[in-house]
Formats: sequence, structure tokens, C-alpha cells
Amino acid sequence: MNPSGAKLVVANRAGQADIETRLTEGDHQALRLWLRLLACTNLIEGSVRERLKSEFAITLPRFDLMAQLQRSPAGLSMGELSQRLMVTGGNVTGIVAALEAEGLIVREPDLGDRRISRVRLTDAGKTSFERMAKVHEEWIVGLFVGLSAVEQADLSELLGQLKAHASKMRN
Amino acid sequence: MNPSGAKLVVANRAGQADIETRLTEGDHQALRLWLRLLACTNLIEGSVRERLKSEFAITLPRFDLMAQLQRSPAGLSMGELSQRLMVTGGNVTGIVAALEAEGLIVREPDLGDRRISRVRLTDAGKTSFERMAKVHEEWIVGLFVGLSAVEQADLSELLGQLKAHASKMRN
Repeated sequence: MNPSGAKLVVANRAGQADIETRLTEGDHQALRLWLRLLACTNLIEGSVRERLKSEFAITLPRFDLMAQLQRSPAGLSMGELSQRLMVTGGNVTGIVAALEAEGLIVREPDLGDRRISRVRLTDAGKTSFERMAKVHEEWIVGLFVGLSAVEQADLSELLGQLKAHASKMRN
Repeated sequence: MNPSGAKLVVANRAGQADIETRLTEGDHQALRLWLRLLACTNLIEGSVRERLKSEFAITLPRFDLMAQLQRSPAGLSMGELSQRLMVTGGNVTGIVAALEAEGLIVREPDLGDRRISRVRLTDAGKTSFERMAKVHEEWIVGLFVGLSAVEQADLSELLGQLKAHASKMRN
């Protein structure tokens, strides 16, 4: 199978034909694949960022931070929270302060070590996040609808293999 | 096929079990897939950033910028260059200034409109980039070696379908 049978003119963050469509067909398979993976991620992430901004006046780092807190109802330390973030570009301390000022999260001393702060969503924060998360998921479903359920499963499995091997390779 | 037959404990940027392994199996397929895509990209990008830093004392935004210039030997305007970048986190003006100070790129007035600067690699810049690009590609090949050539082709095709549809969806 020739994976590059058609040179798709597809987008980097600004809609220009990106580097992975301009490399030579047949050569450099892994490099082209990496650039395609990066381009896909950029495209979807960019779409989500734009929509979070226009629908909810919220940044993706902030949404990501609230998502991590929603997954850990008992709360997280600032260190744990930072480690779990999936997107770059956020100032964790600043976002936490802003969310606290808005009553969406609360900081409490850790029960075991009162020098450590644990951060968790308030009820208002949970409600706010759940509303946004529902809409966010609809966007994601829409962005992936070009792939059938079977294709999504295949893609997930291939990415899972990629992750498993690539994680082992990291020092 | 159950894509989540085994819950892979795989890494976000800091090596913690990430959110996509913690969502419910069977539900939320597109969302889990998006998070897996994001996690894979983070993993590989993080690996490349670390290696560029330790091998070449260079940031990924800088490497990316030089890569775009290498693809356009006639040079790019600052606007074109900014649009082609594949990674975030770079200050284009600052990187261009630093590369120019090092003799790796040169700025020249556009022949058609002398108010516009075009940026291109010098011979020294080309040599420097080609050396790094060769090593960078070896890293990428190594990161993807967990997938056979056929699997890489399948992955590329699925991502291509994803990109084609997702680009149409962006406003």
C-alpha cells in the first residue's frame, strides 16, 4: 500500500501546505509519519482552542487543568497537577489562582502534610467543567467522524503500539 | 476489536498514567482516541526536545524554524515562516535574530517589495541543519520502530483521513 498515493494538501496551524506533504514520496516513511501525526494533533488542538475561546472564553490549558481535577475528586497537589497536564502553554500557578478567585477550585492543606496544598474542584467548578466537557466531547466526535468506528479502533491500536514502544525508549 | 484490551500505563509529558488510560473502556471512543493521539505526540515531541537539547544545545522551535527554511531555499518572509512552524513555544523574531547573529541565516529585502524581509539559510546554516536533521531522523526512525512498515503505512493513511476531514471542519 502506498500511504502517500495522494498528496493531501493539509494544514499546519495556519492552513498552509505543511512540511509533511512536501517530503518525497516513498522515502523517509517514519519522518513523514511523525510530521503527519504532529500536523493532525496541531489541527485538532487548534480547533479545540478556538472553540473553547469562542464558546466559553477559556484557554485550553485552563480546560486541561480542570479536566485533570475532575478526574481526581480527592484533589491533587500542585506538583501532581503539573505533571498530569496534557497541553503546554499554561502557567499552572496563575491558572489555579484565577480559578480559585472565581470559586471554581479550592486549595486545602494536605491532611498528611499540611505544608502541601491540594487543589480540587468546588461544586461550582464541577458543574462548570461538566457543562464544557460535554460540548468539548461533541466537538471531538465531530472532528473524528471522518473515521468509522472500526477505523478509530484501528487508529487507537496503532497509536497504542507506538506509545508503548516510544515510552520505553525515553530515558 | 477492542482497542483498549489492555490499559496501557503510558506517559504524559512527565511519565504519569495519563488521562486517556483512565477513561471508561468502551465509552467515549473519539475522546479517548484524541487523548491518545495527544499523548503520543507529547511523548515523541518531548523525546525530540530532550535530545535536541542534549546533542545540539538547540530548542525544538529553533530546529523547526531551520527545517522550514531548508525546505524553501529561496527564503521566506517572516509571515510565511511563522505560518509554517509546526511546534509552539518559539519566539520567531528572537530565534531569527539569534540565528542571524550566528551566521546561520541571512535576511535580505524581498526583490519585489524591499519593505519585506526574506529569510534564508546561509551555506553554514544549511550544513548545520543537515547534520542535525540526519541525526533527528534517526531518532524518529527509532521511536517508530515498534510499528512495522505496513503498520506505519496504515497509521499514515488513517491519520491522513483524519486530517482531511478535520481540516474541512475548521472555520
